[in-house]
Amino acid sequence: MIGKNWRTLLRRGDGYFEFCILLLIVLGMAGASSADPLPSWNEGLTKQAIIKFVQTVNDKSSPQYVPPEQRIATFDNDGTLWSEQPIYFQGFFAFDRVKALALQHPEWKERQPFKAILENDMKALAVSGEKGMAEIMMTTHAGMTTEQFEKIVKDWFAAAKHPRFNRPFTDLVYKPMLELLAYLRENGFKTYIVSGGGVEFMRPWAEKVYGIPPEQVVGSSVKLKLEMRDGKPVLMRLPEIDFIDDGPGKPVGIQKFIGRRPIAAFGNSDGDHQMLQWTATGEGLRFMLLVHHTDAEREWSYDRQSSIGRLDKALDEAQNRGWTIVDMKKDWKKIFPF
Amino acid sequence: MIGKNWRTLLRRGDGYFEFCILLLIVLGMAGASSADPLPSWNEGLTKQAIIKFVQTVNDKSSPQYVPPEQRIATFDNDGTLWSEQPIYFQGFFAFDRVKALALQHPEWKERQPFKAILENDMKALAVSGEKGMAEIMMTTHAGMTTEQFEKIVKDWFAAAKHPRFNRPFTDLVYKPMLELLAYLRENGFKTYIVSGGGVEFMRPWAEKVYGIPPEQVVGSSVKLKLEMRDGKPVLMRLPEIDFIDDGPGKPVGIQKFIGRRPIAAFGNSDGDHQMLQWTATGEGLRFMLLVHHTDAEREWSYDRQSSIGRLDKALDEAQNRGWTIVDMKKDWKKIFPF
Repeated sequence: MIGKNWRTLLRRGDGYFEFCILLLIVLGMAGASSADPLPSWNEGLTKQAIIKFVQTVNDKSSPQYVPPEQRIATFDNDGTLWSEQPIYFQGFFAFDRVKALALQHPEWKERQPFKAILENDMKALAVSGEKGMAEIMMTTHAGMTTEQFEKIVKDWFAAAKHPRFNRPFTDLVYKPMLELLAYLRENGFKTYIVSGGGVEFMRPWAEKVYGIPPEQVVGSSVKLKLEMRDGKPVLMRLPEIDFIDDGPGKPVGIQKFIGRRPIAAFGNSDGDHQMLQWTATGEGLRFMLLVHHTDAEREWSYDRQSSIGRLDKALDEAQNRGWTIVDMKKDWKKIFPF
Repeated sequence: MIGKNWRTLLRRGDGYFEFCILLLIVLGMAGASSADPLPSWNEGLTKQAIIKFVQTVNDKSSPQYVPPEQRIATFDNDGTLWSEQPIYFQGFFAFDRVKALALQHPEWKERQPFKAILENDMKALAVSGEKGMAEIMMTTHAGMTTEQFEKIVKDWFAAAKHPRFNRPFTDLVYKPMLELLAYLRENGFKTYIVSGGGVEFMRPWAEKVYGIPPEQVVGSSVKLKLEMRDGKPVLMRLPEIDFIDDGPGKPVGIQKFIGRRPIAAFGNSDGDHQMLQWTATGEGLRFMLLVHHTDAEREWSYDRQSSIGRLDKALDEAQNRGWTIVDMKKDWKKIFPF
């Protein structure tokens, strides 16, 4: 075959050319599937466990085969798909919004918890407690239409930078997890975010960054209300919590929004504990994974004592039950895409 | 080519056979796309409007082309995909559940609204009003796990029959709408149910009957609570409304669960009015359709005066704005698949 030139091949007119094309396609497909799907993961038990699970549920001859429509995989976001230190990134967004709105609210200079944010006084902010944080969240996340909020989120992501890395926040996603998302999708999985973060804070960029479309993002939310403005319907974001998608809220969110139990779940903190338990107790083969933050040099190192992303009870259960635990320092060749 | 037998063809060994197969596949595809995708729809303006819309959003050379990921189509269920007379089918389910549970509740014989149902006294039931209906719904739809409820729903659908047609309720789906769902999906649309009915009442059969998976069913819901039973997590259905997906709730449900505005919406009553308005006021080409029940002989005939599925204000707006209106009697060659 080698040595024949293209013109001869095309002239034959007996389908030989088409046959060669077909052959190249088939060989190309085989080539793609034998390449390493997780190049940023170091070789070892963690990587082997992932690949074995995916191959098994995809193997029609296995008793543990799972039909594609049941291959639901749910991922926590903060600390699982991107970083969450020194505070959840949505916190930076809220603080920046307070600063941006302060001109319209001169009274905030003397009123907590706003005063604390305007003066970068984190101690005073801590004193305001959960009530103070709730007030900040409602002030910055409600009182506008869904479309206005989407624009605010997009504009913030285009301009804001993480203080440690001096890069856009969406650069702080984990390359190994991007590979894992893609690998699962290539193997027929439907990948979902199931996060305590605000659903409308994630949807505007989740498709571009993670390949996860808006309808596959489950998160916390405020109540919405339909109103008519200039004869057109708009959805107003009300200063009232609708749903908290964290801890025991995660299985609830999964049932409400997906209506099927996942066969694989990925988290990093006690806020994901119930999601992993819910996933683990379904029938058939299951895969539960925790990202353990062990790399202070390249990212952060924290677990049982951290106020953000505490990993304590879930870590015990993972160890007892043999769930997969990613040792970030050891298992990840690269952390961020940059 | 005709006259050559298969053995000769296979013996050639030069790819000619493969070429023929390829040719057959290509011809088969062309054949499929030129066949009538909506055989149960009579020729006319309604059918033309549907096909023109689908072809336009799918035509890359058109300025009104829509990328596949934005091709979201939402369908009401009761009266749009299946019948809703003489009462919503979920009402039959609730009444049957009251009768099934009555043995465990001897006090119901003397207590409204249960007494009315046990005695088939629809007048007394009407007197109990919304409060009575809410009590029936909560008694029959809450107080069990999500898995128990799913089994109850499946068992009911396997046994219950519609009083007029003496057939399983899932037989009373509209064949023209099944064809429309399939036609949209073949053209890259993601089809959703957005119904006032209970989400967990529809999910157990929507995939089999409509080809719509659980995660694409949006509906009304009760609150859920995670509990541990024998060391295993279960989701309990609480006797408390979580969300009513009807009227102004439909755009809210669409935003909560899908997070994108549909480009096509299908309904049949004033409960779908806001969903169609919400769909209509997005940018780009849009398609809004109302099923008008005009066929008392083959199905039912009702609109402005009906207590179930009233179509009044939405009909006016559809006429004023040129939304597509299905005249069931005229436009549908067949109504049910049987």
